[in-house]
Amino acid sequence: MADDQNAGSGRSGLSRRRLLLGGVVAGLGAATAIGADLALNPRADAPEPAAPLNGQETVPFFGVHQAGITTTPQAHATFIALDLQPGVDRDALRRMMRILSDDAARLTQGRAALADSEPELGTVPARLTVTFGFGPGFVSRAGDARPDWLGPLPAFTIDRLEPAWNDGDLLLQIAADDAFTVAHAARMLLKDSRSFATVRWTQTGFRRAHGSEKPGTTMRNLFGQVDGTVNLTPGTADFDRLVWHERGWLAGGTGLVIRRIRMDLDKWDRLDRGGREQSVGRTLATGAPLTGTNEHDEPDFAATTSIGFPVIPEFSHIRRARTENTDERIFRRGYNYDGVPTAGEISNSGLLFVSFQADVGRQFVPIQRRLDELDLLNEWTTPIGSAVFAIPPGCGESGFVGETLLT
Amino acid sequence: MADDQNAGSGRSGLSRRRLLLGGVVAGLGAATAIGADLALNPRADAPEPAAPLNGQETVPFFGVHQAGITTTPQAHATFIALDLQPGVDRDALRRMMRILSDDAARLTQGRAALADSEPELGTVPARLTVTFGFGPGFVSRAGDARPDWLGPLPAFTIDRLEPAWNDGDLLLQIAADDAFTVAHAARMLLKDSRSFATVRWTQTGFRRAHGSEKPGTTMRNLFGQVDGTVNLTPGTADFDRLVWHERGWLAGGTGLVIRRIRMDLDKWDRLDRGGREQSVGRTLATGAPLTGTNEHDEPDFAATTSIGFPVIPEFSHIRRARTENTDERIFRRGYNYDGVPTAGEISNSGLLFVSFQADVGRQFVPIQRRLDELDLLNEWTTPIGSAVFAIPPGCGESGFVGETLLT
Repeated sequence: MADDQNAGSGRSGLSRRRLLLGGVVAGLGAATAIGADLALNPRADAPEPAAPLNGQETVPFFGVHQAGITTTPQAHATFIALDLQPGVDRDALRRMMRILSDDAARLTQGRAALADSEPELGTVPARLTVTFGFGPGFVSRAGDARPDWLGPLPAFTIDRLEPAWNDGDLLLQIAADDAFTVAHAARMLLKDSRSFATVRWTQTGFRRAHGSEKPGTTMRNLFGQVDGTVNLTPGTADFDRLVWHERGWLAGGTGLVIRRIRMDLDKWDRLDRGGREQSVGRTLATGAPLTGTNEHDEPDFAATTSIGFPVIPEFSHIRRARTENTDERIFRRGYNYDGVPTAGEISNSGLLFVSFQADVGRQFVPIQRRLDELDLLNEWTTPIGSAVFAIPPGCGESGFVGETLLT
Repeated sequence: MADDQNAGSGRSGLSRRRLLLGGVVAGLGAATAIGADLALNPRADAPEPAAPLNGQETVPFFGVHQAGITTTPQAHATFIALDLQPGVDRDALRRMMRILSDDAARLTQGRAALADSEPELGTVPARLTVTFGFGPGFVSRAGDARPDWLGPLPAFTIDRLEPAWNDGDLLLQIAADDAFTVAHAARMLLKDSRSFATVRWTQTGFRRAHGSEKPGTTMRNLFGQVDGTVNLTPGTADFDRLVWHERGWLAGGTGLVIRRIRMDLDKWDRLDRGGREQSVGRTLATGAPLTGTNEHDEPDFAATTSIGFPVIPEFSHIRRARTENTDERIFRRGYNYDGVPTAGEISNSGLLFVSFQADVGRQFVPIQRRLDELDLLNEWTTPIGSAVFAIPPGCGESGFVGETLLT
């Protein structure tokens, strides 16, 4: 509750005027805000003393759920997986999570972390969220039973996993609308974790800049596809039922899957527009199903062409991803990545597929199995990394993330 | 002229209302725009039909000078150095630069490039600029004499250059306020250059998000320092004299130095705040010289402490960078970088030092020599990459960048 749909909250300390100006780009009911401001403040045409700052918006850290899940995706995210050092026991885990939670609580509100040696770098929160996830190794060391889905995913035939991008004991998902904010928060959290853990992998992704697109626009990936149209909607009963775990230390938490999907842009270039649209089953222009006109139109899988072929091909991504079982749904919140190409390549790009679901085994795995069996998109995409984490619930102001497991 | 101070221009196609809303975060005289809008449009409290979009601002491509130099620095930049393929002669260079100029002219205005297979990704210009630079190999193949400074810099004792980050025949500086825009433009330009050249290196950097800081705020680097206070100001006579080349094919162009400066954040952490401030000669809080109170106060190098030591130490960066020779000045326009750490590190970070100057040999080199001899900051920073490019002038609508060299 407290941080459901938390984007846009946490601004109460700002003046009305700041709200007006900051809100314009945030796209959070800007039109209404302007109308209200003018109505209340007819002399608002006086010159402004200072320019408005876009980066002052904050997302609450404390709440029933962790932030960074229902939060409207920020423009930048860094995912860091840590390996626990050998001697780290349950007590040490508790100390670490107390420190990291405190750092996150401060940094997300635009305040310096306690041990921050560059406090001037922490003054632009830019909707920063820090979301912690626990891998199987973390839960084992905590001495608790882990959910049966917490561990490597079953092997899929399409996978070409590189150990450099797999697994991990502790996940930090650090996201903000300002890349500098993400870099500073990552640095601060890593400094405070270094006596407990070492970095296993780091993956950095981006979406459109804050305010570049209309709020609610579905992300495009680097193939140019509208990516993630079918998604659970935060705040709905379906979302609550399918995303939030209900029992034990994970009550109010969820499960996270992150898969690094390499996209072969060079090979994709050799496919014409018709072929591209058939591979997905959606138009490139709007993301509408090939049988519809708007992005969110329901696909008509029975529709056929004049010569009897299905309009949405059997091998298309949307047909394979779809199921009659309404429990097999997930909440996607991914990012694009664009790395430095290695010798001979002109791209090293893809998707950081990220999904949240209460039960990874029952929700994510069946979808992935169907796509593994047959999905034309597999011709151009290759999963090269995979990890699963349990995302514990949020905490109150005197608590810390992980307290339900560690106290 | 045409693109001096070009940030903020190119918006004439947008409605006044769009200007108002978009301009707020752009920070380009937003207060004035609001006042004017209210004065002209007292019924402005009517509801908005759609949310404003931050990414629609454009910077003109055509002009006397190339864009991306005097343009207020965008939030994201990718620098790509290309090596020309063996058979590429003067005619091929001309063909390549015609194609790449056309791509850049379109993409920077939010239009798809001619051969763009993902036109939907080009619709958010977000102040995109593409700036081309020619290395010594390019100018030689064009058959012209190169300026005496166009080539590797003299060796400095502090350098630990890694070949992976040095030199190159053709530079693309691609910058925008949206990371996705930069990624798409880079992809498009590389596709169209691949029959002429291969990628030598790619370096990606960031500053604060567009609108996160007050316009005119000097960048901070990842050490937390205010970095670049002493800088030439676009539009001034000094800038015009010291940045723009005056003769031959480079008239209206300039010289670019890019140096990859690794910053050892872990070692920096072991230095206290007093030591940090002495190493630079400025306070960390505001960037003011240690003898002043505001960032742009003139340092008093003669001031001494009560026991007779200079307040601004002999070994400090600002004392060493300073000269009595007013011709030894440069225009800095750098970015931070934060790469993925390699094994055992918790950071791989630093500064993409970028400067523009009409004569690299007379302006940049003397400054760097003084810093090479003695600058306490060298304890924590290491140049690991270095390249110099000639930046040709801009072009008109029927022309292309490089035409003064290639036609």
